[in-house]
Amino acid sequence: MKSRAAVAFGPGQPLKIVEIDVAPPQAGEVLVKITHTGVCHTDAFTLSGDDPEGVFPAVLGHEGAGIVIEVGEGVTSVQVGDHVIPLYTAECGECLFCKSGKTNLCVAVRATQGKGLMPDGTTRFSYNGQPIYHYMGCSTFSEYTVVAEVSLAKINPEANPEHVCLLGCGVTTGLGAVKNTANVQEGDTVAVFGLGGIGLAVVQGAKKAKAGRIIAIDTNSEKYTLAKEFGATDFVNPKDHDRPVQEVIVEMTGWGVDHSFECIGNTNVMRSALECAHRGWGQSVIIGVAGAGQEISTRPFQLVTGRTWKGTAFGGVKGRSQLPGMVEEAMKGEIQLAPFVTHTMGLDKINEAFDLMHEGKSIRSVVHFED
Amino acid sequence: MKSRAAVAFGPGQPLKIVEIDVAPPQAGEVLVKITHTGVCHTDAFTLSGDDPEGVFPAVLGHEGAGIVIEVGEGVTSVQVGDHVIPLYTAECGECLFCKSGKTNLCVAVRATQGKGLMPDGTTRFSYNGQPIYHYMGCSTFSEYTVVAEVSLAKINPEANPEHVCLLGCGVTTGLGAVKNTANVQEGDTVAVFGLGGIGLAVVQGAKKAKAGRIIAIDTNSEKYTLAKEFGATDFVNPKDHDRPVQEVIVEMTGWGVDHSFECIGNTNVMRSALECAHRGWGQSVIIGVAGAGQEISTRPFQLVTGRTWKGTAFGGVKGRSQLPGMVEEAMKGEIQLAPFVTHTMGLDKINEAFDLMHEGKSIRSVVHFED
Repeated sequence: MKSRAAVAFGPGQPLKIVEIDVAPPQAGEVLVKITHTGVCHTDAFTLSGDDPEGVFPAVLGHEGAGIVIEVGEGVTSVQVGDHVIPLYTAECGECLFCKSGKTNLCVAVRATQGKGLMPDGTTRFSYNGQPIYHYMGCSTFSEYTVVAEVSLAKINPEANPEHVCLLGCGVTTGLGAVKNTANVQEGDTVAVFGLGGIGLAVVQGAKKAKAGRIIAIDTNSEKYTLAKEFGATDFVNPKDHDRPVQEVIVEMTGWGVDHSFECIGNTNVMRSALECAHRGWGQSVIIGVAGAGQEISTRPFQLVTGRTWKGTAFGGVKGRSQLPGMVEEAMKGEIQLAPFVTHTMGLDKINEAFDLMHEGKSIRSVVHFED
Repeated sequence: MKSRAAVAFGPGQPLKIVEIDVAPPQAGEVLVKITHTGVCHTDAFTLSGDDPEGVFPAVLGHEGAGIVIEVGEGVTSVQVGDHVIPLYTAECGECLFCKSGKTNLCVAVRATQGKGLMPDGTTRFSYNGQPIYHYMGCSTFSEYTVVAEVSLAKINPEANPEHVCLLGCGVTTGLGAVKNTANVQEGDTVAVFGLGGIGLAVVQGAKKAKAGRIIAIDTNSEKYTLAKEFGATDFVNPKDHDRPVQEVIVEMTGWGVDHSFECIGNTNVMRSALECAHRGWGQSVIIGVAGAGQEISTRPFQLVTGRTWKGTAFGGVKGRSQLPGMVEEAMKGEIQLAPFVTHTMGLDKINEAFDLMHEGKSIRSVVHFED
């Protein structure tokens, strides 16, 4: 079938809106009509060419919501008409990782997904007869996309897709990092580095966990207004200080924060986030994705004196088991999604969404496929 | 009073056995007659001059056992005649850290201890009228030493001091890292880097925790015999392989180990230890002390895919609350100490203990003050 899609033909180039061919879903696969998709920094990161796993041409996008149009052979967990969120972190329920009860990092489709392919090693997308690669198992920048069954969360059809698409990545990652990875407790002090969509979701998650003090850190002071609305109690702009921001935060708090979160992908900031953690028990969670080959460093003394360095992917959330419940929470207003959506636009304007993001003017732009 | 002591007069010099003067214990202090002391790599590290906190001249030693001879004003928790182990990690029970329930890193005497001074900012040791510094709050290389009350664990007087002195540092650190910091569970896979006293204690702790597989790593294959006695199931000599040892261990185990421990103080090994940890949930604990200014590094991807990097000091053990119980365990044979004591000697031979350690010939030398 034909599908409108925004295709990344090469690194550093704007996306091109074209009509691609989408092959039918194979065994264990599902054809989904995407109605809405967020545009995330990770899409921009891959588009930039810095992502070592990035392959071109590809249909990017991994933060979407849609409806099941057709199911391949053997698919039982979703039916035509079901409302779904595609998952870049699959949940097969059967691999070593799913069965461990310790992680959400399912390996069912990992090897092929990283190469832009479906589990059988081929693609369902083509343009003028040439194959187009998938992306993160989702490719939500195409109106019609093919996704593995294990990569689909079935959600309440009454949910607002323009909002809950954000649970496909950024908001879930931030909320999950607070709850699953850091396990923030009532009264804890939290530092959040970077106030994009994920950082603001961390702020929201910390507020939800009844953190006592939520320190928001960004070089763009304009971000503070929204951070405050989400629950931030303090704001630090590293540009206002001559010394490392970790020193400023340790001084503000006495001994550092109970939990810090890096939501940018900057390895220097990752170090600051670790080093502002409380002596004895503070932990720092890396959420941001750093460029290829970049490394984090610190003195081991930081760890020996009780700090813990962690990371998280998709906030430790198991998509098929846990995302439907988060959608319900959003419908009850227990998770706020609307404030993240600062811009909406049709598919033809998707490059503007990237521009707004690069200029720091948007939190999330949501692209809709229907007019 | 006069006391025989092995004094470090300067970095890189052998210790000198001299008779020093020891002033009476002040308020909150206790005069202890040391009967036995282990010689630990940390003593050698400070003696080498690499320790940024190292001050000279000083009485080193921090792994001792002794008897209370005199108590200063206000001391209530120990009496003359009590058997004690000096603690380089104090436990005041009243500071933010002691009260947190989350860490053993008491700060009661931290600031002065790091400078080689008693809590009032002075020293109790002198030689020919010149002050001699304390070390790690213990200075067990002097027959008579003065220790803060909060830095003394009162133990069963029936315990064998030649063995339980090792609970003052190395063995407790290794056992505690397994139990308190990593919380190793039955069936878990463990990798131990470096088979000195601490590494072997980690092996013993892992065996005690019923770990399923205990991989011992050392460049000296002779260490394997003792590691095996303590419970190691596999041995890897990094010199036998052309590729990074973490790759060897990941291949041996499928996805890496549940827990790894760095027991050397080598920042490259710290990286290997982290990177051989299991995707999704593996954790790596830094125990070794690195040289001044050295840093650890890795790709943040290692953490984002579920590994956790931690450290530990004194194995997370709260000395005054928990060490007496560990002494009881040693007396019941639940903790094995005798195999660590490969050499014993009088104080006059203490420099041989350092030589044996540097040559990799000893696990622990225990120095006794009485003939």
